[in-house]
Amino acid sequence: MPHLKLTLAYDGTGLVGWQRQASGTSVQGLLEEALAHLEGGPVVVSGAGRTDAGVHALGQVASVSLSRPIAPLAVLRAVNVRLPPAVRVVDVQEVGPDFHARFRATAKRYRYRIWNGPVVSPFERAYVWHVPWPVLDVEAMRAGAARLVGTHDFAAFQGAGGDVETSVRTLWSSAVEVRELDAGSRLITYEVRGEGFLRHMVRAITGTLVEVGRGRRTPASLDEVLASRQRGAAGRTAPPGGLFLVAVEYGAGDL
Amino acid sequence: MPHLKLTLAYDGTGLVGWQRQASGTSVQGLLEEALAHLEGGPVVVSGAGRTDAGVHALGQVASVSLSRPIAPLAVLRAVNVRLPPAVRVVDVQEVGPDFHARFRATAKRYRYRIWNGPVVSPFERAYVWHVPWPVLDVEAMRAGAARLVGTHDFAAFQGAGGDVETSVRTLWSSAVEVRELDAGSRLITYEVRGEGFLRHMVRAITGTLVEVGRGRRTPASLDEVLASRQRGAAGRTAPPGGLFLVAVEYGAGDL
Repeated sequence: MPHLKLTLAYDGTGLVGWQRQASGTSVQGLLEEALAHLEGGPVVVSGAGRTDAGVHALGQVASVSLSRPIAPLAVLRAVNVRLPPAVRVVDVQEVGPDFHARFRATAKRYRYRIWNGPVVSPFERAYVWHVPWPVLDVEAMRAGAARLVGTHDFAAFQGAGGDVETSVRTLWSSAVEVRELDAGSRLITYEVRGEGFLRHMVRAITGTLVEVGRGRRTPASLDEVLASRQRGAAGRTAPPGGLFLVAVEYGAGDL
Repeated sequence: MPHLKLTLAYDGTGLVGWQRQASGTSVQGLLEEALAHLEGGPVVVSGAGRTDAGVHALGQVASVSLSRPIAPLAVLRAVNVRLPPAVRVVDVQEVGPDFHARFRATAKRYRYRIWNGPVVSPFERAYVWHVPWPVLDVEAMRAGAARLVGTHDFAAFQGAGGDVETSVRTLWSSAVEVRELDAGSRLITYEVRGEGFLRHMVRAITGTLVEVGRGRRTPASLDEVLASRQRGAAGRTAPPGGLFLVAVEYGAGDL
């Protein structure tokens, strides 16, 4: 009875997100259907985190138990044949019986991509938040992002509908990068790594950092936003298409 | 009466190509409609080359005359508001009255992208030809590509339906590059620059080079294919989604 760790990449455009919903196409639903075909019966997978509707993944992780012995590579091939091209299993590993994609995760990495310039490349249109103007102050955004590193109560960055016991989380890194593009545009990237994230947290942080970049807030004001614990004190929730779940990390014993 | 050079990028997925057709959405049609709104009457644009259905562009060029003075940047903004996000005008320049996107072009550059490996990234699925297996022999492909440099009769690489007087063309460069990706995949790129190209020429060359990469043809056999002048002597036409019109070049007097 193999217990498997599956790593997935997906283009979240048009999907309702990771989790099965009453209607719409979810990654979990697609994956469970593809695995059920292999298993010959219903299958339940556990995902490391619930990406929202329209959010992408480079390295989402799911765990599943199958009832019959089957080689990981055979699972990868059989499942990818059934999945739409927007969702790909990129790796399958056999893991110990205690592995659980969500409960054994030790860290997650997210990336948020902002197109700061007049004309968005047609090839990037589904994968960025377009902030045409003004030229954002990346140094100020960087200083603001750095203030979030450490253990804080992130209640001010938590979207409604979360069901967690505590809104205290630890971020190990929180950084802003910038790359010059053609025709006066820049790609600004927010990269964050932490032990766990609240609902909409990365998007709310990004929305707030863009206000810092616009000069509407100071970097130091991020401390006040954290202290307020009020969602209204932070900026808007950035749109889903710019967000990528980059990777989920596990302890050495789980790999 | 400004005469303008427009540079466009587009995601060709779902489009019928550059040229206006009886049915379906063409880049030319979209651009002419957007400009007609600005002009207040019908507009005809000339494109540098007719990209086929499903082919992409990073730097297609079109020329157009408008009847009223209007700043290039205003044209760029007004047209992009009307165009779908899959088609973007990335640059507008005022040019002399003799400029013509097609007749004054001195060179074109194309790129063809091949995903050589088991699992295609969801984010690349519309922009590559997937050749999962075998691992292509890039050195052989490179040697084959190099044999096409120079002035040759490319009739063997011309798709049906072309309407040109001669199938003799000059290629100044014809090269294969490779980049290693995750999970045992590689991105193989065919880059070609020439004075002009026949219908389906880059895709027919690519299809033939992939057969060289599979070991089904030798690099030297490209000479025989050229000499045959028979389409059947070359390989299959590679699918459109991997092809990009990268840039169109003009003489210094036209810029």
